[in-house]
Amino acid sequence: MTHFQTLPSSGPLRLAAVDLGSNSFHLLIVDSDNGHFTELEKCSRKVQLAAGLDDQGQLEESVMMRALECLAEFGTIIDEHRVDRLRVVGTNALRLAANSIDFVIRAEQCLGQRIETISGREEARLIYQGASTAWQDDPANCLVADIGGGSTELIVGAGTRALALESLEMGCVAYTRRFFDSGELTEATMQAAEQAALLELANITAHYRRLGWQRAIGTSGTIKAAAATLRAIHPHLKKGEITRTGLAELRQKLIDLGHLDQVSMVGLKSNRARVFPAGVAILSAIFQALNLEHMQHTSGALRDGVLLDLVARDTRHDVRYTTLGDMQRQYQVDVQHAEYVAATALTLFDQLSRSWTLDDEARQLLEQAAMVHEIGLGVAHNRYHQHGSYLLANSDMAGFSLPDQLALAWLVQAHRRQFPEPPPEHRAALSSGELVRLARLLRLAVVLCRTREVSNDWQPELHADDKSLVLTFAQSIPDLLSQDLALERQWQQRAGLMLAINTP
Amino acid sequence: MTHFQTLPSSGPLRLAAVDLGSNSFHLLIVDSDNGHFTELEKCSRKVQLAAGLDDQGQLEESVMMRALECLAEFGTIIDEHRVDRLRVVGTNALRLAANSIDFVIRAEQCLGQRIETISGREEARLIYQGASTAWQDDPANCLVADIGGGSTELIVGAGTRALALESLEMGCVAYTRRFFDSGELTEATMQAAEQAALLELANITAHYRRLGWQRAIGTSGTIKAAAATLRAIHPHLKKGEITRTGLAELRQKLIDLGHLDQVSMVGLKSNRARVFPAGVAILSAIFQALNLEHMQHTSGALRDGVLLDLVARDTRHDVRYTTLGDMQRQYQVDVQHAEYVAATALTLFDQLSRSWTLDDEARQLLEQAAMVHEIGLGVAHNRYHQHGSYLLANSDMAGFSLPDQLALAWLVQAHRRQFPEPPPEHRAALSSGELVRLARLLRLAVVLCRTREVSNDWQPELHADDKSLVLTFAQSIPDLLSQDLALERQWQQRAGLMLAINTP
Repeated sequence: MTHFQTLPSSGPLRLAAVDLGSNSFHLLIVDSDNGHFTELEKCSRKVQLAAGLDDQGQLEESVMMRALECLAEFGTIIDEHRVDRLRVVGTNALRLAANSIDFVIRAEQCLGQRIETISGREEARLIYQGASTAWQDDPANCLVADIGGGSTELIVGAGTRALALESLEMGCVAYTRRFFDSGELTEATMQAAEQAALLELANITAHYRRLGWQRAIGTSGTIKAAAATLRAIHPHLKKGEITRTGLAELRQKLIDLGHLDQVSMVGLKSNRARVFPAGVAILSAIFQALNLEHMQHTSGALRDGVLLDLVARDTRHDVRYTTLGDMQRQYQVDVQHAEYVAATALTLFDQLSRSWTLDDEARQLLEQAAMVHEIGLGVAHNRYHQHGSYLLANSDMAGFSLPDQLALAWLVQAHRRQFPEPPPEHRAALSSGELVRLARLLRLAVVLCRTREVSNDWQPELHADDKSLVLTFAQSIPDLLSQDLALERQWQQRAGLMLAINTP
Repeated sequence: MTHFQTLPSSGPLRLAAVDLGSNSFHLLIVDSDNGHFTELEKCSRKVQLAAGLDDQGQLEESVMMRALECLAEFGTIIDEHRVDRLRVVGTNALRLAANSIDFVIRAEQCLGQRIETISGREEARLIYQGASTAWQDDPANCLVADIGGGSTELIVGAGTRALALESLEMGCVAYTRRFFDSGELTEATMQAAEQAALLELANITAHYRRLGWQRAIGTSGTIKAAAATLRAIHPHLKKGEITRTGLAELRQKLIDLGHLDQVSMVGLKSNRARVFPAGVAILSAIFQALNLEHMQHTSGALRDGVLLDLVARDTRHDVRYTTLGDMQRQYQVDVQHAEYVAATALTLFDQLSRSWTLDDEARQLLEQAAMVHEIGLGVAHNRYHQHGSYLLANSDMAGFSLPDQLALAWLVQAHRRQFPEPPPEHRAALSSGELVRLARLLRLAVVLCRTREVSNDWQPELHADDKSLVLTFAQSIPDLLSQDLALERQWQQRAGLMLAINTP
């Protein structure tokens, strides 16, 4: 079994990443050659998705329209560059919005591309990956902070390896709504925002301080703007540098302005002005909680991490397989059996991929599901497919988007007993129809491997049309397998799926 | 912090265990002195709970009445013996019955004692514990099979240590309903039952064979009856011995009888006759799947395991703390912090246990919940209290009954953010009111330990009446703690609970 899809080196690739952030949307297009990137296009639009969340957590129509306009513009640029691969990720605002699926469907139509919402910790991992290219050969510990519109990511890492990843529920757009809704900018409103941020930080401070760091790096617009406005006041500062005393000065200047409408500073773009004070409050809380003296802004960010991940997926360094291996260990999976089931499932897949029009992404998903289909046994034997499904839907899984996880979780739940309802379209990585086909193959592989004794004697030949799946065995099969397949035929029948079994 | 409640050696104790099996109810009363048991009373009643499950999985009223009559009888015997401690456990039929809670409530009233349904694997663990006292000094691997009315437990162990535990969904009462409902006893009906049992066994056979064993032991009425009927035919056999050829002979004799109504054999009690053929089918499948030549019946069983567990709870060998420690490891809990929270929670508890009338069982539960309140972080950081709760509700947890697990799961879910609805009465180990009180203490302990820096400076004095809880700090407290407590007051208020905080 091959865990890693080592594709033949296909020469330079043109890659694009779109980051649907809660404050800004970002586009990055590069030419990639042997891990080296040449930047072709980089642009950001202040869509302020998080500001468009109403009290019921619904994305307002006007904001959706603004976002779709931006995506149409990005789409044109991407088309012009004839991009080979594109990945689009959504973050906090799409995680939170009750109607995010409505937006995702429209945005996918607009871009002609799948949109993947990622978890907060996956966001933190990708940010660190993107930022750490700047110091990848320096093994000293480094703190990275990214203050977004809806969430703030804090990472401690060594070289390119993250040691601690957190995504906290605080961001400059969300905090502007929560603490500066009246527009008043006073010592009291600043302190309220800072205190709330300090409470969020209290959970992680001790752990982070224990890890320690030699320098603190900041990414994102808030931190860039803080550095730029500070340098406008103190030109002796290095570009991108923020000092503790400088930050305190900046904070006081903002309070002196008295109202969000009055916020205007050299170095601060006007469309960031209203969310800047909340961003400064969060940054001040980070300086205080983590006892920082300096922070240096760097431009590497989420979209860079997304592109690095995209490149790694063609190599042995695909982080997704590392994650699945870690889960196998945590839940004490019988790895040999998992590999046997995966190999069997892929053999079945390869006979049908054409007639069932399943692509390489589907093949990878089937392999991944087979690798972890028994993790639920590490929780309890009873209903273990459901426990496995829960873990896959809810775990922090580096390298996987939430739709990826949902697809895996569904396949694992569907691998035995009753066929569950497929997840709603556009929520999972594949369509319902594709998922059902993969589940049928995984279930058959599990049945064929039931005795846990490796033997390829009972590999059937598969034929399929739209509904029916026909298994033909070249020789007679053991009674137990025959009965097991008869049961499986009943399960599939109950789900409206025809399964025929031919034995000599 | 003390993980283990080492009670002062209180001299001999009189202990009782009641096993509400799916086929029979059993009572065992012993005098226990330093781990040595002297049997005072042992009796069984064929209640056939599993036979009273109707098509909707409801326990029929007539069966409930039969069961309650038996418990009334057991209750009288237990009272006569002036028992110090009693534990009552329910197994498969109570796990499956949709209305088991109705029965549990009535049975608890009848016995004046909590009834604890246990999981299949916990049942297997206790059976092995009960049976293995017979060979505890012999380290050779041993297979133990227990064919119950609703489930069959199979264990491989070495000495007193179980290496593999399984509970399969097959039992003599359930299989009689499923395969012999017409009463017909033919080669075909026997084979159908055996094939179904072989399919259940197929999942575990390879693993069990890999572990291997030097001898096979059987417990339970089915196996005892098989040995007794065989010996009636072949008096040269040892008492309790079953051979492969003998079993085949027995199976043929049953088929020759042709109908359940005709089943009558020397050595077979008449009230077991109708479920005996299904039991023999399951036993034959076990012999075939595990390739056995011999099996030896032993009388040690679930109720003996229950009593051994009861004794161990007063010592350092309480298996529950081993289980919680294993879970801390599997989910990489910060153990130091867990111990800090537990110690803080117990300090709070000890100030209120009298005014809130909370007993030692409640104290243990609070300590246990504190030990594992962060296991959900091993799944994901987001909503980790819910993941922890899921794991505690669903994991195989040696030493815990299902109501114990439900109480723990609820406390962990309730330890932060919104107060969840308490579980329905009689489902969890404690009443809703008690659970809410423990949750309030656990939450306060978590807040007091928020910074993860051990310091006892902020230990408040607690006073409580029926609704209000008053915290009084002797000295001023940090701003962050003050704000954290103010938030906590809001959470409790939303749940209708008054919390007052006094600082100088």
